[in-house]
Amino acid sequence: MRAVDLITSKRDGRELTAEEINWLVSGFTSGDITDYQVSAWLMAIYFRGMSARETADLTRAMVASGRQLDLSDVAPFVVDKHSTGGVGDKTTLIVAPLVAAAGVPVGKMSGRGLGFSGGTIDKLESIRGFRTELSTKEFIAGVARVGLVVASQTGDMAPADGRLYALRDVTATVESIPLIASSIMSKKIATGANAVVLDVKVGRGAFMKSIEEARALAVAMRDIGAEVGLKVRAVLSDMDQPLGMAVGNAVEVAEAVETLQGNGPRDLVEVALTLGSHLLVMAGSVKSPDEGKVRLVRVLESGEGLETFRRFVANQSGDTSFIDDLSLLPQAPIQIDVSARQSGYITSVDAEALGRASVEIGAGRLVKGAPIDHAVGFILRKKPGDIVEAGETIITVHAANEVSARAIMPSIEAAFVIGSDQPKLPSTVLEIIT
Amino acid sequence: MRAVDLITSKRDGRELTAEEINWLVSGFTSGDITDYQVSAWLMAIYFRGMSARETADLTRAMVASGRQLDLSDVAPFVVDKHSTGGVGDKTTLIVAPLVAAAGVPVGKMSGRGLGFSGGTIDKLESIRGFRTELSTKEFIAGVARVGLVVASQTGDMAPADGRLYALRDVTATVESIPLIASSIMSKKIATGANAVVLDVKVGRGAFMKSIEEARALAVAMRDIGAEVGLKVRAVLSDMDQPLGMAVGNAVEVAEAVETLQGNGPRDLVEVALTLGSHLLVMAGSVKSPDEGKVRLVRVLESGEGLETFRRFVANQSGDTSFIDDLSLLPQAPIQIDVSARQSGYITSVDAEALGRASVEIGAGRLVKGAPIDHAVGFILRKKPGDIVEAGETIITVHAANEVSARAIMPSIEAAFVIGSDQPKLPSTVLEIIT
Repeated sequence: MRAVDLITSKRDGRELTAEEINWLVSGFTSGDITDYQVSAWLMAIYFRGMSARETADLTRAMVASGRQLDLSDVAPFVVDKHSTGGVGDKTTLIVAPLVAAAGVPVGKMSGRGLGFSGGTIDKLESIRGFRTELSTKEFIAGVARVGLVVASQTGDMAPADGRLYALRDVTATVESIPLIASSIMSKKIATGANAVVLDVKVGRGAFMKSIEEARALAVAMRDIGAEVGLKVRAVLSDMDQPLGMAVGNAVEVAEAVETLQGNGPRDLVEVALTLGSHLLVMAGSVKSPDEGKVRLVRVLESGEGLETFRRFVANQSGDTSFIDDLSLLPQAPIQIDVSARQSGYITSVDAEALGRASVEIGAGRLVKGAPIDHAVGFILRKKPGDIVEAGETIITVHAANEVSARAIMPSIEAAFVIGSDQPKLPSTVLEIIT
Repeated sequence: MRAVDLITSKRDGRELTAEEINWLVSGFTSGDITDYQVSAWLMAIYFRGMSARETADLTRAMVASGRQLDLSDVAPFVVDKHSTGGVGDKTTLIVAPLVAAAGVPVGKMSGRGLGFSGGTIDKLESIRGFRTELSTKEFIAGVARVGLVVASQTGDMAPADGRLYALRDVTATVESIPLIASSIMSKKIATGANAVVLDVKVGRGAFMKSIEEARALAVAMRDIGAEVGLKVRAVLSDMDQPLGMAVGNAVEVAEAVETLQGNGPRDLVEVALTLGSHLLVMAGSVKSPDEGKVRLVRVLESGEGLETFRRFVANQSGDTSFIDDLSLLPQAPIQIDVSARQSGYITSVDAEALGRASVEIGAGRLVKGAPIDHAVGFILRKKPGDIVEAGETIITVHAANEVSARAIMPSIEAAFVIGSDQPKLPSTVLEIIT
């Protein structure tokens, strides 16, 4: 086989065989195939796409490049959840304990935030002592003992994906549905779950800006699941507006705890229950998503979800005292209220603008490995549909100092659109792909 | 500037500025921009194309990467000729001496053959003592003294093109009109000519298989000329059939001499006179191509073309005795006639099949730098339109040994199609692009 012939095939729109894809991926991982050939191949994929079969074969090849967990000894059926990333997206911190409390173990590896969307690992690290870098043994033990573990993605899972992603990042080949789908799914498959629910975010504050793109990505991931025998369902959810009221790290953990205490914002609860209910359906513990929601509301209201969350934090060495006193979470020294310039209805809040501002203020990073400030972020006081009076607070900025708070004020203010007509608000859950 | 942003621009179909293209090309040449980014960019160009302005800017950037000859001191107007490559294409050896003999100096750098199409440098090296590797001084002196020089392309002319081509060759990005056009034109511009006639071959035995592709390439090269102030005309000529009767190296030199002696095959003479006449028009020495042809026929019939050829060979240290006795050229030890299996009209001769067979027999190479056998090749005895009797010779194979001759016999035979109806033969010159 010659790499140039496989590049030509893809360039000309032909399907590659499993053997050819394997040869490329393993050759790239071993260094036998040059990165300049692989980047040309990736750009050809960008333009020509990949069939469902090719995408699954690429995924399998990436899984095969590293170690794959086998959780069947500790639990008959383990589930996982993945979000494509959004602003204010603390859903994992709610779904995972609820589902685990409902009797379905959750084993999840997660990433750190990059760009305007946050990462679950960063959020969890707001908790004093919380360990996210777990050994395989610890990961498996977490599933067995608590029925819930969330750890950092380790480098030995799908290392080919890591190498390919690094190349895609500098060659303008990130934005390709089959490449995104196989990248996500290779890591999910390597983690050893039996079912995955995908939260595909759509809108300004998400990677996928249109419902069509989001649907295509969801379908591609579902199809990979079908090819490799992993149950997959996807929820398309709105990310034009930030999810919930908190954007940041510690502030999002606090909001997650409040939600598990029964005081969550409507949109966040809706997304969490929807995602969780499909996990219960896939695990076979309920017959329908509606039945799943009822079950989850029960564990939420009974406090079992919060208790599972507490045991999860403790199991990963986190200090759980903050659960009963949220002021023990990192607190930003400066809190500045931003008030409305006019009265009316909040018609929209630009999630991307808030996401970018949160990076600027230190809650996120633009470059991998950069430090973040867990204490800073925003608390929205108004959401789309709310009525506001001129001078009333619309958002509170939590900042390390006044200079950094003032610097983002204009863009924060501009993110809120206030109009005279009551806006029609779409459901936060847009579509389910099964 | 960041390479990834420029790749993104091209990927998304935006035009790059001259500054951006320059930055990419010079960064790639200096090693500051990685080859994996450039290959992704090249693949994006493959899919998105380049505007005439971008193509000209790419060409200029490649010219600027190396030295550029200035011939204005030795001649007020120097012309050049380029063929995109074909089978049996010895046209340079006829056009150049005729045009030079008509008073218009020709300074040409040329390449070696690769794949099924031959190269002028290989053909000239059939001549004992002939030197193709000339210094700049020798090149300029050849223009001044003989009015005709043909040398190997040197590495210091448009080195960025050489590096880019090497990358394109292994990343399936060769077949892109703007990349081909800029590659050819960067070398032509660097050589310092004032006008170039391009022979764009079309058909099975050419790189461009369709008239549309050939026209697009010709237009792209003409447009580059217009942008950089170089006169360019292009002739699209047929390469479904081999050109002339000889395919090889020494056999093609012999056919060129016979043509300069007034005994050339019709198709070869037609192409040579057409190309040459447009050079004379661009040089301002005649008013029309028809007038140019009349002038060239005159220098052909008077023997001045042959005399210029003799002085050209002598000037580059070649032994000229072969001109008066063609048997002094390298002779293959084995000559085998292939005869027709049936009677009828020759309806077509597959140029590509003959080209590939010529490589197999040793007249060409598949890999750069591989040696060739100057003596081997074919002499066609029949061309499309000719009547043939079963058993009559259609082609003579000149080979190093009988084994190699026999090995290609089936494909040679299959290249000739014999039918019962007289075929309609198109003109060899298909179109002129001015």
